[in-house]
Amino acid sequence: MVALTLTDLFAVPALDRSLAPALQQALDGKAKPPGALGRIEDLALTLGLIQQRMLPVVERPVLLVFAGDHGLTRSGVAAFPSGVTVAMVDTLLAGRASANAFARVVGAEVRVIDAGVAADLSDRAGLVQARIASGTADASVEPAMTSAQAQAALLAGARVAGDAIASGADLIALGEMGIGNSASAALLMHRLAPAPLDDCVGQGAGHSPEGMARKRAVLAQAAARSDATAPFEVLTQFGGYEIAMISGALLAATRAGVPVLVDGFIGTAAALLAVRLAPAARDYCLFAHASAEAGHRLMLDAMTVRPLLQLDMRLGEGTGALLAMPLVKAACALLSEVAELSDVLEAAG
Amino acid sequence: MVALTLTDLFAVPALDRSLAPALQQALDGKAKPPGALGRIEDLALTLGLIQQRMLPVVERPVLLVFAGDHGLTRSGVAAFPSGVTVAMVDTLLAGRASANAFARVVGAEVRVIDAGVAADLSDRAGLVQARIASGTADASVEPAMTSAQAQAALLAGARVAGDAIASGADLIALGEMGIGNSASAALLMHRLAPAPLDDCVGQGAGHSPEGMARKRAVLAQAAARSDATAPFEVLTQFGGYEIAMISGALLAATRAGVPVLVDGFIGTAAALLAVRLAPAARDYCLFAHASAEAGHRLMLDAMTVRPLLQLDMRLGEGTGALLAMPLVKAACALLSEVAELSDVLEAAG
Repeated sequence: MVALTLTDLFAVPALDRSLAPALQQALDGKAKPPGALGRIEDLALTLGLIQQRMLPVVERPVLLVFAGDHGLTRSGVAAFPSGVTVAMVDTLLAGRASANAFARVVGAEVRVIDAGVAADLSDRAGLVQARIASGTADASVEPAMTSAQAQAALLAGARVAGDAIASGADLIALGEMGIGNSASAALLMHRLAPAPLDDCVGQGAGHSPEGMARKRAVLAQAAARSDATAPFEVLTQFGGYEIAMISGALLAATRAGVPVLVDGFIGTAAALLAVRLAPAARDYCLFAHASAEAGHRLMLDAMTVRPLLQLDMRLGEGTGALLAMPLVKAACALLSEVAELSDVLEAAG
Repeated sequence: MVALTLTDLFAVPALDRSLAPALQQALDGKAKPPGALGRIEDLALTLGLIQQRMLPVVERPVLLVFAGDHGLTRSGVAAFPSGVTVAMVDTLLAGRASANAFARVVGAEVRVIDAGVAADLSDRAGLVQARIASGTADASVEPAMTSAQAQAALLAGARVAGDAIASGADLIALGEMGIGNSASAALLMHRLAPAPLDDCVGQGAGHSPEGMARKRAVLAQAAARSDATAPFEVLTQFGGYEIAMISGALLAATRAGVPVLVDGFIGTAAALLAVRLAPAARDYCLFAHASAEAGHRLMLDAMTVRPLLQLDMRLGEGTGALLAMPLVKAACALLSEVAELSDVLEAAG
């Protein structure tokens, strides 16, 4: 991944579908009625195409949790104080966040990345240091980041994913932590889906009616400040370092033929950004779940995506992506471990 | 479980909900916005109530796969020959069925039970011998089983579950294998949901339009033969030994405070039978998924159940129940492993 440029990162090749007929035949030949495992069979075929193998393998899934702060919080878009980002980074590093608990259940490694937290975290053991700045600027009054910062964030995300893949990751799940990031994600969705801003703004981590009204007003102010619609420009205007890094990580994974598990509202906004930057990237993504955050469904629809789970979750951290991992492993196991239908029918006489 | 009677089995106590406020408070106190883990939080609360613990534990889940044959197959209700039941039992015993592959992914033990396969399986190592008869009678011309056989099957299922629990199982998933059993399940649903017969008949393992017409005609003939609506009588009329044993196993698990994971169409018909026999049993059940089999949704609705997964699966064997297990484990992990929100907010200053 040395000296990767944005041009390299955006040059995602179309998914090679030449193995599809053989994979479909293999699935139809398993000891079950054809199609009886529904979406697990679809998943098996997709995994085979992404990994370009008849027997796809997911044994070392890694969740990357990118953390960043948002200048928008200074205008009051979030229900929690921005300091919660640091506290949750520490909770993740201590293995005591929901994502850690779920990761232990599904057998995934968790890596936590400082993408741009508004605090000095250089002393945190185990934290991947990739910070671009001490939080973004307040997108309601100025661009969230410079072009150079946006580029650096995309490339840093690519590097983090590349490192995980180099160390053996065969599935990359993408999570985030960042007070205020559902506000940033709403602006990205607004411009990139595209969709009316009101349809993009949800509760985030929770809001009173007054809090929601304030969030809407601040985001309307931000949207009024810039009419950007080109994806890279939308990123610089409306931010999020953690969102940019998720996009970069996603694009890097596609280059390596490693499937990506996309999480909830913020993760999907980052995936949408990646797909708008490099449309072929969509076919390398597995969309874990439809969250309870308003607008998530609409954003998935904008990419004609049908997610795997619907569990009314709206936490982030990659929690939804983690819960989808066993489905991915089951899809691999179907192709590699299940008997042939022909053998069963022969035995049945 | 010695000398358990049907009266004992049907005497399911109402779920004790006294821990609910404390469990809800514990969930709300975890390091996440209240309710942000959606159905995982609901699941955690339910597990706490079933196990009567503030920290529910699911570490040794066991899938019981009950196998049985159906006299209805002689009238042509099934797409596969009845001999496939034996061949799939052997595939399950060899660890090469889809259920085995999924069980390895989620860390579950699989036990295969001969509930009433139409072949001598006494030589099969590892098979739990609990057969009532060599398949049921043809329900389109006579009752599928006698009252004594129905009673024996319910009690045998209870015994099998009791054995699993005695050996340490802390979650019982219920699966089945039996050519023709979607036909039997359709008749049970018709009388116990209740619902018009046409709404209960689906593709099963797959059918041509002619095959579906035949299945419908045979089931209409069976339904015309008996107007039974009382649950035990419906079981004797329309069978399935594996279905009866699932019901018995489910009821036995409730007695022990062990949560039950219900699988797809056939498993849900068995759960419906159990719930009609002992209404309080419903609250001890976790419904894993909505299958692609026509009627499954309607049957879940009849019990006002919202299943966890929707993956267009229609295989049985307990495959859907297995894929829901990580959600159950995640719910336990949330309560036992995740930090307190108050600590995070204090650290955030």
